[in-house]
Amino acid sequence: MLGSTHGTFTTDLRARVVACGEAPPVVVHGVTAAPGDVDVSGRPLHAPVPDLDRFFRPESVAVIGASDTEGRPNTGITRQLLAWAERVGARLVPVHPTRASVFGIDCVHSVGALTEPVDLAVLLVADPLPVIEELAETKVRFAVAFASGFAETGETGAAAQERLAAAVRRSGLRLLGPNTNLNAFEHFRDDLEGPAVALITQSGHQGRPVFTLQELGVRLSHWAPTGNEADLETADFLSYFAGRPEVGAIACYVEGLKDGRSFLLAADRAARHGVPVVAVKVGRTETGARTAASHTGKLTGADRVVDAAMRQYGVIRVDGLDQLQDTSALLARARRPQADGVVVYSISGGTGAHFADLATAAGLELPTLHQAKQDELHQWIPEYLNVANPVDNGGHPVGDWRGRKIIDAILADPSVGVLICPITGPFPPMSDKLAQDLVDAAEATDKLVCVVWGSPVGTEAAYRETLLGSSRVATFRTFSNCIGAVKAYLDHHRFTASYRSPFDEAPRTPSPSLRKAQALVRPGRRLSEHAAKQLLRAYGIRVPREQLVTSAAAAVRAAGLVGYPVVMKASGAQLAHKTELGLVKVGLTSASQVRDAYRELTDIARFEGIDLDGVLVCQMVGRGVEMVVGVTHDELFGPTVTVGLGGVLVEVLNDTAVRVPPFGEHEARSMLGELRGRALLDGVRGAPPADVDALVEVVLRVQRMALELDGDLAELDINPLMVLPRGQGAVALDALAVCR
Amino acid sequence: MLGSTHGTFTTDLRARVVACGEAPPVVVHGVTAAPGDVDVSGRPLHAPVPDLDRFFRPESVAVIGASDTEGRPNTGITRQLLAWAERVGARLVPVHPTRASVFGIDCVHSVGALTEPVDLAVLLVADPLPVIEELAETKVRFAVAFASGFAETGETGAAAQERLAAAVRRSGLRLLGPNTNLNAFEHFRDDLEGPAVALITQSGHQGRPVFTLQELGVRLSHWAPTGNEADLETADFLSYFAGRPEVGAIACYVEGLKDGRSFLLAADRAARHGVPVVAVKVGRTETGARTAASHTGKLTGADRVVDAAMRQYGVIRVDGLDQLQDTSALLARARRPQADGVVVYSISGGTGAHFADLATAAGLELPTLHQAKQDELHQWIPEYLNVANPVDNGGHPVGDWRGRKIIDAILADPSVGVLICPITGPFPPMSDKLAQDLVDAAEATDKLVCVVWGSPVGTEAAYRETLLGSSRVATFRTFSNCIGAVKAYLDHHRFTASYRSPFDEAPRTPSPSLRKAQALVRPGRRLSEHAAKQLLRAYGIRVPREQLVTSAAAAVRAAGLVGYPVVMKASGAQLAHKTELGLVKVGLTSASQVRDAYRELTDIARFEGIDLDGVLVCQMVGRGVEMVVGVTHDELFGPTVTVGLGGVLVEVLNDTAVRVPPFGEHEARSMLGELRGRALLDGVRGAPPADVDALVEVVLRVQRMALELDGDLAELDINPLMVLPRGQGAVALDALAVCR
Repeated sequence: MLGSTHGTFTTDLRARVVACGEAPPVVVHGVTAAPGDVDVSGRPLHAPVPDLDRFFRPESVAVIGASDTEGRPNTGITRQLLAWAERVGARLVPVHPTRASVFGIDCVHSVGALTEPVDLAVLLVADPLPVIEELAETKVRFAVAFASGFAETGETGAAAQERLAAAVRRSGLRLLGPNTNLNAFEHFRDDLEGPAVALITQSGHQGRPVFTLQELGVRLSHWAPTGNEADLETADFLSYFAGRPEVGAIACYVEGLKDGRSFLLAADRAARHGVPVVAVKVGRTETGARTAASHTGKLTGADRVVDAAMRQYGVIRVDGLDQLQDTSALLARARRPQADGVVVYSISGGTGAHFADLATAAGLELPTLHQAKQDELHQWIPEYLNVANPVDNGGHPVGDWRGRKIIDAILADPSVGVLICPITGPFPPMSDKLAQDLVDAAEATDKLVCVVWGSPVGTEAAYRETLLGSSRVATFRTFSNCIGAVKAYLDHHRFTASYRSPFDEAPRTPSPSLRKAQALVRPGRRLSEHAAKQLLRAYGIRVPREQLVTSAAAAVRAAGLVGYPVVMKASGAQLAHKTELGLVKVGLTSASQVRDAYRELTDIARFEGIDLDGVLVCQMVGRGVEMVVGVTHDELFGPTVTVGLGGVLVEVLNDTAVRVPPFGEHEARSMLGELRGRALLDGVRGAPPADVDALVEVVLRVQRMALELDGDLAELDINPLMVLPRGQGAVALDALAVCR
Repeated sequence: MLGSTHGTFTTDLRARVVACGEAPPVVVHGVTAAPGDVDVSGRPLHAPVPDLDRFFRPESVAVIGASDTEGRPNTGITRQLLAWAERVGARLVPVHPTRASVFGIDCVHSVGALTEPVDLAVLLVADPLPVIEELAETKVRFAVAFASGFAETGETGAAAQERLAAAVRRSGLRLLGPNTNLNAFEHFRDDLEGPAVALITQSGHQGRPVFTLQELGVRLSHWAPTGNEADLETADFLSYFAGRPEVGAIACYVEGLKDGRSFLLAADRAARHGVPVVAVKVGRTETGARTAASHTGKLTGADRVVDAAMRQYGVIRVDGLDQLQDTSALLARARRPQADGVVVYSISGGTGAHFADLATAAGLELPTLHQAKQDELHQWIPEYLNVANPVDNGGHPVGDWRGRKIIDAILADPSVGVLICPITGPFPPMSDKLAQDLVDAAEATDKLVCVVWGSPVGTEAAYRETLLGSSRVATFRTFSNCIGAVKAYLDHHRFTASYRSPFDEAPRTPSPSLRKAQALVRPGRRLSEHAAKQLLRAYGIRVPREQLVTSAAAAVRAAGLVGYPVVMKASGAQLAHKTELGLVKVGLTSASQVRDAYRELTDIARFEGIDLDGVLVCQMVGRGVEMVVGVTHDELFGPTVTVGLGGVLVEVLNDTAVRVPPFGEHEARSMLGELRGRALLDGVRGAPPADVDALVEVVLRVQRMALELDGDLAELDINPLMVLPRGQGAVALDALAVCR
């Protein structure tokens, strides 16, 4: 299993890292990968890509439990497998202990009796475990187990699944399932051309509409119904599909992930190959996450972390299966955009206005056409109609020779990459001809031509024959799905054009900071403010000059060293809400004030029954923008880094952005752009602009710390981080750290 | 025109109110309405409902410009009108100066020669103005003008439209158009039953998909293509349809409105009748608003004001035409909900989890079914499947007698009002039977049964015949449209159940405050802070005790009267950003500090070249939550009231809510619920809860002021309004007022 990124395995290893405690994480990698194949947190940096050619196109298939007795469920399955084997040119070998033949094919009586190498074994038995153990003896490369009753049913099932997974790990074969189905062996149409959609789903019923796209002329190449993912998981198929030349886009329906990192590595591979990944991920709400988890027994992760992680790797997350269909079909088939400009063209000013309104609201840019182009269009379109974009032809020109001229003229504009024609209702004298012109024009250009066929009926010939008959026109049924897909298309190409894998630049060896930091770690404990700040200092994050003192006299001496005015704070591992308790004194300018403050702070602590490890005498830092920077641990992705507006804003509005490491400076900057209160950093009400560079630097240093201390640090919260005016840096005024 | 709420007319009148200046608005109503029919701002409180029976079902129709010459556009129109007249049982009279007959019907040679009363005159002439003038002499009740080239083409066209509108006002008839089309005279199917959708559109092409719903079995009763609305406007049709017994829901496509108040009065009428109104309103973005305005020459209004106004009257705003179709069809046909509970039922745990996730995210509530009900369901559904809600039947039970039992058992639960069954893909052995069971069950219950037919194909018999063949099942194609429509359905019934028209309680006569306030008004000027606060005081809004002084000695005397500590501020009509300029001094505790402050403030003002009318010596107010309350003028709706979080929050986050008067206390409270920073009012970080009642009272007083001073006040901004801890009130610390 050298080099495997097999999720459960990785998880096991990580558990061991935590357990053995002392060893720096980077050392612990021997079993999974060669040195250099993991980042400083011990997570893999490369995913080996499973070779699934023989899974999808096997030469020989053994069906264990094959049957041709009418009325038995296995008979229907065997029949479908036979039809599929014939289509893909595979030899099918029925395995049955007693029968001589099944559907006229001679049976082999046991797995052990299989004489020739078998690419794929389909297990139609209720308990696949013993069969997997038998298969381990043979040269079978892949197995599929349909049986249910595993992790999806609760704890007992999960234990059975773990035994199955262990047997698979020992066997050397790769398993799809259990709790999967026949979707991989469906009838894929081979008469459709062009780049295909490959499909990965954790629920067969949920994949059906994407598969059905073939009836609308969209080519499907594969369907991987991953079921319970005891072995092969979503990430494996994603990695594999990303490298297949026939795959134009990958559509995923995901309820939970087995392992966050393996998913991200697969998404990274797709991004490097420029292959778009469109995904529905259940878990927007607590209800959804809970229901999904009980369906497949997998982790759903915190939704905003999933959302961020997907965006970091260019995965296009959509909510509906209709969006999954429309977006993946468009992305699979459309060529690289030649320009970003989107032009809306319609036979009605109302339709153009409405579409432009929604498109602009969704973030598409509709450039105004140059005057020369407008003049050209006005040769065919009455002068009083608006042709600036949206282009309104008023209806009549589509009925004659002018219709095609207008479309060609728009497409010839170098600023135009996409032409969208919303046809809200069928009006055959106009819409039939318009549809044909759009199809003809699309055949003659590399640019993207989209049509919205808005009729709710959908049986019209112009739609079903003309538009769906063309693989060059992208046809939608609603404005919003068209807008969403075109946005995803332009975003995808923009993203991949500038994509640099964060894994290439992820830290592999610990920084010198780690040794200093580890000395501060107290397993299972919350650190005092002072210790937490020492941790920050170890990673080069500025904290105020400060001293921890345990007497009034020492406080006065410390104030002299720190420099007046000073801030004094009670310090203790159990302390939270210091301000509310009156345990912070600011702006102390004299020895006597310091002495009084010391007395008052210790009195309050005594009164409140709080254990102090002393009182902090801190340098008073100038005014700036209060931010928070933190680390939390996500069940799927491990450490995550958060940045947000501090003070009351973070408490009331939760105005924060999150990222999954590893990520670079560009991504750290983009976090700030997500904050609703972003403008505070630019300076409002006469305040100077804040030192954003210093803030970004802190975010990156915190990321480094999160990765290096992943086994030791459960939670970190710098609140507030005072971001001073530009050029003056950022200072962590308070910090909370909890060790594992 | 007594009692007319005709938009242009109202606007004219309001312009006159402003022009004559001195007269309090309430007096100016003589021409439009009897006393008591207008609110204190002079806007109507009741909309007379036009009787459009004879427009939609005329006995006689004159077609001016009728033709039967092949190839002429008017010939096609005449043919369609003939077919329509025959269907509705109207007598058609062609009017043509020279022809003897058209399509075999004797012509009348001029409008003047029409001998019998005519209900509807259809004007197929390029210039309708002279015909309208001729029609004024006859007893024609309604006219339709198709001609274009009016307000949609720019200023000259707008002037022509105004001449046309004036002629219509003089004539006594009501006009639809100009720039409209034949949509009102389409072929409405009369074989469909149940409550119908009535349609109002400002663009024919945009209404087509809703009209086409008839092909899916949804009844359509009317289509009003309002065009340029020189006379009859969207609001007129809305009012009329709201009272028609056959209308179950009204679907609107709106680009701009002629008059905000008339639309709200019509929406109010629909709300009183419990008739749901579903509307697309273009103008989410600047691009959309601009394009729409150039299409119909109407005002679009500030989008967030439109949004708020629609919500106040229960109008369901949607973005897409697909949502308009699905939501209006559901609302027209579904009966009143018997319970709020929504149950999701599917043949796949994945589908249930996904649907539940999206439904919950959209705000639907999926109650957990009682254990007894779950036990009942487990008679037919395997024990390991989740039946708590979503109900997952695992597939097989739908294939036999259990399928219908399960559906009936769910519907029999008293907590269940809606059953939704998402069928993502066609799998005939299961989905055909499931569809039939759902239809049968829906026929046997008054509860709402919804199905999502997720196949992208849509030609399947189960969809097209079984599901669409039933008017009792609401069938959708996407999860999101189903969820949106069901949410709208439950919200609508909740809204109408507790609806009280704000027009019934709107102020009709000025309060005693008005006289005091009017004495402070300075036409065209911005008031000083002191004067603006006097205005607030006139309306019973608390301001700090304060005195305006013009010498240091007077400042000291004032401080003595106001009471130490005091705040001192420079005061002048041109002053803004006082704090940034250092023109505010707080916490002054002695005469000498007051004297120094006076000197410093006047020095700064001199140095900055700012004219002061003096210095304010103000009572220092305790700490609370800083809010803003303001009034702005919307081009469509007139004065609007805004409330928001104050300080940096309003500046950076624009965290505000807006309402269109008149509105009551309930609505004022709901504004606070819209604020993202709402929790600040509840008290955070140990702060006490704020005096929300006092804040609501200020909002209502500001509304009163906005209505009474509508002709005088262009803008008002209380910033900050300090909302003190509960029971202590709210104080306007600063105010800005601009007079018209």
